[in-house]
Amino acid sequence: MVFIDKLLNASRQNDSLVCIGLDPDTKSIPDGVDIFEFNKAIIDSTADLVCAYKLNFAFYEAFGVEGFDTLKRTVDYIPNDIPTIGDAKRGDIGNTAKAYADAIFSKLNFDAATVNPYLGFDSIEPFIKYKNRGVFILCRTSNPGSADFQSLSCQQEGRNSYLFELVATKASLWDKYGNIGLVVGATHPQELKTIRENFPSMLLLIPGIGAQGGDLEKAILYGIDASGEKTVINSSRQIIFASKDSSFASAARKAAIELRDRINYYRKKPM
Amino acid sequence: MVFIDKLLNASRQNDSLVCIGLDPDTKSIPDGVDIFEFNKAIIDSTADLVCAYKLNFAFYEAFGVEGFDTLKRTVDYIPNDIPTIGDAKRGDIGNTAKAYADAIFSKLNFDAATVNPYLGFDSIEPFIKYKNRGVFILCRTSNPGSADFQSLSCQQEGRNSYLFELVATKASLWDKYGNIGLVVGATHPQELKTIRENFPSMLLLIPGIGAQGGDLEKAILYGIDASGEKTVINSSRQIIFASKDSSFASAARKAAIELRDRINYYRKKPM
Repeated sequence: MVFIDKLLNASRQNDSLVCIGLDPDTKSIPDGVDIFEFNKAIIDSTADLVCAYKLNFAFYEAFGVEGFDTLKRTVDYIPNDIPTIGDAKRGDIGNTAKAYADAIFSKLNFDAATVNPYLGFDSIEPFIKYKNRGVFILCRTSNPGSADFQSLSCQQEGRNSYLFELVATKASLWDKYGNIGLVVGATHPQELKTIRENFPSMLLLIPGIGAQGGDLEKAILYGIDASGEKTVINSSRQIIFASKDSSFASAARKAAIELRDRINYYRKKPM
Repeated sequence: MVFIDKLLNASRQNDSLVCIGLDPDTKSIPDGVDIFEFNKAIIDSTADLVCAYKLNFAFYEAFGVEGFDTLKRTVDYIPNDIPTIGDAKRGDIGNTAKAYADAIFSKLNFDAATVNPYLGFDSIEPFIKYKNRGVFILCRTSNPGSADFQSLSCQQEGRNSYLFELVATKASLWDKYGNIGLVVGATHPQELKTIRENFPSMLLLIPGIGAQGGDLEKAILYGIDASGEKTVINSSRQIIFASKDSSFASAARKAAIELRDRINYYRKKPM
């Protein structure tokens, strides 16, 4: 099954655009709880509420060899009908990019990956060639520093556009297998609106709500396609660290339900 | 000791600008040879000929948990007086970038890392804050796709510059601890010349000679600073796979000597 179908199936089955970011920052995990056990408890308590799980590699690599093992075991544990996004933001030259794509898709078996566009097409092509997997290209990221380069006004073919718009345009030109999406932060609602207007059927992965302060209502209104879909709203800390004591799993379930329902309220609200 | 001093010490001691890329693509490693043993043999036969070793994470991550262990053992094995560059090209938002910086500098103990600028300052700051470690920011990469975005003409403060030039300018502004360098491919000699002219004392990491076809003579003439230093010439496949049979280590030594001597011929040649 191609990635977009797997995602839409999960999203419709659970009536949810929520993606939970399994980013186990040990400062916030209850004392004495093993990271894999933490992830397992979160997955058990939320798998019927989400359209995907996203794992940011940084929080696993910070534990070295053991962390890599925890990453693998967590992906393997996620139910087969829920898509997994490997948030590794990789970008390297051709033969090296292939090694990264193989690591994420073949070795770890993620359904999708995030990639960085700075190195251009040959850094992304080995990912796209996995036609059944999804590839989310960073476009306008949620962090404050994203303006440093992504918002530069650049010339192409006699027109001026922001760099992130040119990334989106290239991404849509490269999308011959229909497996490319874009990462656009909820912290930039106007940019999100522009991207959705220009690319009405592109899949969007939207981080930046919750701890980062993005506006959820605008993220939904501007992010969804004409069917109220093709949007993945990521939340990490707001859900997985909703409680920092032994009730963390039930607190995560409660936070996930609240977020799912708020999103559904906005996406089903008459315009 | 700060990174630049460790690098210059090794470079002067071995009279070398050569950095060997330990990128163990299994297709090219002799049959039956374990990756760590392969790296160990290359290090043993070349440690007196180089200014640094660079390890590209992709070739280790492709082996999953075991690969991560090999990466760690290889870094630990490299003699203390030779700097190690973790070529991970990471780029992520603030708290995540910190996890990556901790993984590369604290957990794996690399002396330097490569980072991707697309996410802007807060994605790079956690690396820079390790004041004794080096941070190489991707500027103009060696691959064909690098032109897709890096060569766009962008406006800033009423002037037009290429995106890679604006990355270099920002990098020099961010360099308050003197630990930032730039990655500029040998496949783009004119761009390398521009960067060196504009940033006469910036440390440059130059990939792209050998298998990628960059011009070594121009890379040296345009890359070195006024003292014939501040340049790290990376070669991976040309050295480590100089022979694909059991003589690989002695063939690597021979190839490293040849490269070091050619570089020294060009850098000491009267202009």
